[in-house]
Amino acid sequence: MGNNTGSRAYKGNILYSKDKDTLISKENSYIVVMDGVVKEICDQLPNGFPKENIIDWGNHLILPGFCDMHVHAPQFLQRGVGMDRELLDWLNTYTYPNEAKFRDKEHARKIYSLFADELIRQGTLHVNCFSSIHYDASEILFDILEQRGLFAFTGKLNMDQNSADYYIETTEQSIIDTERFIRQHQSDGNVKASIVPRFSITCSEKLLAGLGRLSEKYGAPVHSHMCEALNEMKICKELFPDYKNGAEIFYKNNLLGQRPTIMAHCIFMDDDVLELMKNPNCMAVHCPEATANVNAGGIMPVKKLLNMGINLAIGSDIGGGANLSIARGIATTIQHSKIRNMFDPQWEAVNLKEAFYMATRSGGRFFKNVGAFDEGYYFNALVVDDSSVCSDDMTPVERMERFCYAGDDRNIRMRYILGKEVV
Amino acid sequence: MGNNTGSRAYKGNILYSKDKDTLISKENSYIVVMDGVVKEICDQLPNGFPKENIIDWGNHLILPGFCDMHVHAPQFLQRGVGMDRELLDWLNTYTYPNEAKFRDKEHARKIYSLFADELIRQGTLHVNCFSSIHYDASEILFDILEQRGLFAFTGKLNMDQNSADYYIETTEQSIIDTERFIRQHQSDGNVKASIVPRFSITCSEKLLAGLGRLSEKYGAPVHSHMCEALNEMKICKELFPDYKNGAEIFYKNNLLGQRPTIMAHCIFMDDDVLELMKNPNCMAVHCPEATANVNAGGIMPVKKLLNMGINLAIGSDIGGGANLSIARGIATTIQHSKIRNMFDPQWEAVNLKEAFYMATRSGGRFFKNVGAFDEGYYFNALVVDDSSVCSDDMTPVERMERFCYAGDDRNIRMRYILGKEVV
Repeated sequence: MGNNTGSRAYKGNILYSKDKDTLISKENSYIVVMDGVVKEICDQLPNGFPKENIIDWGNHLILPGFCDMHVHAPQFLQRGVGMDRELLDWLNTYTYPNEAKFRDKEHARKIYSLFADELIRQGTLHVNCFSSIHYDASEILFDILEQRGLFAFTGKLNMDQNSADYYIETTEQSIIDTERFIRQHQSDGNVKASIVPRFSITCSEKLLAGLGRLSEKYGAPVHSHMCEALNEMKICKELFPDYKNGAEIFYKNNLLGQRPTIMAHCIFMDDDVLELMKNPNCMAVHCPEATANVNAGGIMPVKKLLNMGINLAIGSDIGGGANLSIARGIATTIQHSKIRNMFDPQWEAVNLKEAFYMATRSGGRFFKNVGAFDEGYYFNALVVDDSSVCSDDMTPVERMERFCYAGDDRNIRMRYILGKEVV
Repeated sequence: MGNNTGSRAYKGNILYSKDKDTLISKENSYIVVMDGVVKEICDQLPNGFPKENIIDWGNHLILPGFCDMHVHAPQFLQRGVGMDRELLDWLNTYTYPNEAKFRDKEHARKIYSLFADELIRQGTLHVNCFSSIHYDASEILFDILEQRGLFAFTGKLNMDQNSADYYIETTEQSIIDTERFIRQHQSDGNVKASIVPRFSITCSEKLLAGLGRLSEKYGAPVHSHMCEALNEMKICKELFPDYKNGAEIFYKNNLLGQRPTIMAHCIFMDDDVLELMKNPNCMAVHCPEATANVNAGGIMPVKKLLNMGINLAIGSDIGGGANLSIARGIATTIQHSKIRNMFDPQWEAVNLKEAFYMATRSGGRFFKNVGAFDEGYYFNALVVDDSSVCSDDMTPVERMERFCYAGDDRNIRMRYILGKEVV
């Protein structure tokens, strides 16, 4: 147990998504794992399977680890504060002063350690995160994510205009530091470097073009925000009058779809933008809590995007969102979609299967072979213990639903990455 | 310490509502409490105040205990399940089978104990709850709430029509049991009996009239639901064609405003109904999570009601809602109001001061002298410890905000009722 070589069999009530409309539920079954990779799911082990290699979780649930596909690591300590502010006001009052503190490496080490601990506590084993503009702090974040064994993408944030004077960089330095960061991390570990322009308001065209060239040169994935709030889009239009919309700014600068690309929010998208996002390289991240906090202005039309086949995931968007729990994000996704539906019946609500799929298999697509238990997928999994509130007549799907709506990290009894216990 | 006789002084960062627009914040101050009642708040104690009577909570926050003004105790174990169902479907599939189990007294004792434990864990010291139709189980709930020291209203649920055949009572028995329950609990303890018709769909006119007579005879308060969902209101109209609307059904049967009356949901109210609810005896309870789950169909126009001077509170509405945390209910109230505002700018969003007021002082009005720290109020309080994530530059209001958005019961270091530690 806790060793990732040789065959192990994990027994319990296994639940994962096959696709957006299908949950696979295998009660009292075994997941057979070899060297951290799922071999098969069966209800009986072959004769002679060594007893000492069976880890029996009894009546507990075994779920894929969650994917948080949009989160700002340095905002971990400011979460839940200033929520009555509007987006740009909140950035200036809380976020920029807070992120500026990450010039101090000791501070970065302390906060990023707390952040990684909390990700794991909440069952997020796959994460796509922003850091701050600071090269050293971004390295520290990368190292901490790697030490914890997480699957992650992260990069040095870029911002050369329209920020506070104490928290900004030159175009040149931004590009130099980004290239250095990417070259430093060209290994094939589970944490990978990405290019993370904050959003187009805070990036000059020259910077975006330079980042696009780096993305092309190194095959580096991209992570940013777009189509988030109406005033953000208005400012964007004023700053980039030659572009049709926020997506085109990224697209024409080689930062949307040419390589794997994650775009947070994607709330206000016309048909042109939807067409760009249909590219299989692209993924749109719904951040339901943040949407209802500081950047209140709309809700991603999740069901429409799902039905169009656009890759979708869920993000905590700390600190616009206040909670790192993606299980809670599943419930919030459904709830907010129902509220949206109340006021526009054509705008369909999201159901449990769809939201769970977004939080696991669909988000996991960005990492490849995580977020489900197909043969060949990594055994990155959670054991959920709801015994204190479990009754005999509940199905695994109902129990997973209750965990998302009413549970918390205390229900997560064990976390595995590549078949190894995460401690 | 832990003794409710004599003067005690509790030191910390004290925060409570004066009114819907005003938070009183006293940093590093003392609440002086005599026999469980607040005497004064001061930044220095009088000379000679005995040191052993000072309980120093250092930099922690001291907040009033929360009020959960609408919750179904027997639904505690079904919370978070079947959330994709519509209200009436959910009632038939999950709720009635679950509530019917409370004919078993042992089951009732077990679940109501867990429920009371969880209320206290979440910092809810004042609660207004439904039970099931069962007389014995309702007695058990009353006793458990009393044993725990909570301030509470509860009653035997009434339902003589349109329920499942295994979970229904006759009109006569319903009235007999309700009168017996009220007579049994005419003491002046902190738990009081109320009259709790489920909603008008499940109560015949004869039953409602009988309950109205009991309310008048014993001065008993009333707790029910109304104006919750469009199909519920449509059915109501068909069942009671002689009444203008759901509120009039209660009003004309002596169950709305003649005595203290709590009505959950109050989402769809025309001017006539608003006029009835302006009665100072009435209180409307906003249940933001439940509104977004099974009974998705609208959101209470909270700000409008606040501005009209209607008494308002927050309810968890377990199991339509899935979480007993009223701190979380504060955040959800604000978030859902912002989403509502996105689609109708005239529909103003609720802010932190208003939602905190609803959850403490305003809800507390139903109990009298709880939910704030004015002189003469009971010292029913929470000590919130956020030291693991606290930085020096945060105000008490920001820290309270973060507790609501990102904290949980683990941040509640101590609970006091009438100045006594709740353990």
